[in-house]
Amino acid sequence: MAARRHLPRRCFTDNRGMTTIRMVGFDADDTLWRSQDWFDQAQRDFEAIIAGYVNGDARTSERLYAVEKANLAVFGYGVKGMALSMIEAAIDITAGRITAADLHRIVALAKALLRHPVELLPGIREAVEAVAAQVPVVLVTKGDLFHQEAKVRDSGLSGLFRRIEIVSEKDVPTYRRLLEEFAITPEACVMVGNSLRSDIAPVLELGGWGIHVPYHLTWEHEREAEVTAGNGRRMRTIASAAELPDALRSIMAA
Amino acid sequence: MAARRHLPRRCFTDNRGMTTIRMVGFDADDTLWRSQDWFDQAQRDFEAIIAGYVNGDARTSERLYAVEKANLAVFGYGVKGMALSMIEAAIDITAGRITAADLHRIVALAKALLRHPVELLPGIREAVEAVAAQVPVVLVTKGDLFHQEAKVRDSGLSGLFRRIEIVSEKDVPTYRRLLEEFAITPEACVMVGNSLRSDIAPVLELGGWGIHVPYHLTWEHEREAEVTAGNGRRMRTIASAAELPDALRSIMAA
Repeated sequence: MAARRHLPRRCFTDNRGMTTIRMVGFDADDTLWRSQDWFDQAQRDFEAIIAGYVNGDARTSERLYAVEKANLAVFGYGVKGMALSMIEAAIDITAGRITAADLHRIVALAKALLRHPVELLPGIREAVEAVAAQVPVVLVTKGDLFHQEAKVRDSGLSGLFRRIEIVSEKDVPTYRRLLEEFAITPEACVMVGNSLRSDIAPVLELGGWGIHVPYHLTWEHEREAEVTAGNGRRMRTIASAAELPDALRSIMAA
Repeated sequence: MAARRHLPRRCFTDNRGMTTIRMVGFDADDTLWRSQDWFDQAQRDFEAIIAGYVNGDARTSERLYAVEKANLAVFGYGVKGMALSMIEAAIDITAGRITAADLHRIVALAKALLRHPVELLPGIREAVEAVAAQVPVVLVTKGDLFHQEAKVRDSGLSGLFRRIEIVSEKDVPTYRRLLEEFAITPEACVMVGNSLRSDIAPVLELGGWGIHVPYHLTWEHEREAEVTAGNGRRMRTIASAAELPDALRSIMAA
């Protein structure tokens, strides 16, 4: 907001730039509730299991990520695919020496993740309520359908969302299809999320708006994104949910 | 159709019973394309792996089903959950003696299933095309989002469907929500599928219509369903896709 004070006054008085927003989409994991924390904890637990089999630096984390990335095309996102990749990586890193009991502990890690209670981020309920009072809000999240549905149900937020869309990938074709289904032009849509790659860049590319709320943890995969300077003008970055209504106002006034 | 010849003639001449159908939903696995065959093959491969560890009858199949059923609430449907259940069951049945290499073969079974080419059932393309020429058709399938999307893409049928809905469970609340989204009353909807439990019974319960196309194989879980005599009047059973247009005509004339 500080930078706006230096803009010529006419920007605030004429109507040419007023933006009509007809829908605000929210990401879920690490935008509405904590998620990466639990994945990171599962990864540390995995590394502790592997540490019992290897001497010195086995580059466990790096090798797990390589297996996960190679498996994304066949497993997609989510806890179950992660667990199967962990099992593969564990067998590979330990050269097949890992016991069935320790592999069972990896399955148990996945179950614990899937059953983890939902913990809303501070101020998010109030922020979503404030936005929903002005504009229809929808939830757009990717990953495992069954797990995401369970989290939406447990969050107590589902009643606020006009639609809940769980998709396998959040890219330009997916957002284009959703906007067509909602009968909304990209210019009238704002997406709120923590991932530049999945929540912000594709929506900006389509001509829409983005409110980036970085989370303190981000999975390596989600950091890979490019926002051009031109598209960046349709992006706001905020530090927490409390700043969301102001960011939306700034977009509506743009 | 044979039975209809014995109905009083007035059923065909007066208009009281004419039914307007505004949407036909199709199940996917074992309705559009083969699926249970590959799951059954994976299960036989699993049993062959386990057979190397046990003497005599270990009730392997029964114990696997018990683990799968217990895990449904946390994993949901789909190949990845099945693989994790197989790993759990294998460790349990072999009392932890199974090697990492054999557990890796179970992960490989899952990958092979996820990559299996789509094989359409005989006559299904023509049947869906014939129905789609009359009434909007949608696809309603349950299970793993990522895998189902890949199969829809590979099937070459996606262009025929007005909407593709991948849901985590096909029960009364799910169908009610979908019909609300489609803005269609249950009475104007026909669901076509091989599972009484997932495709037919819940739609009949809502007041809609069902066309049951039994598949030669059915997973134990999908056989558990109840169709009351009253609801059964809104169900047709056909032997193959070729009979679908006639069955739909019989519903529209009811």
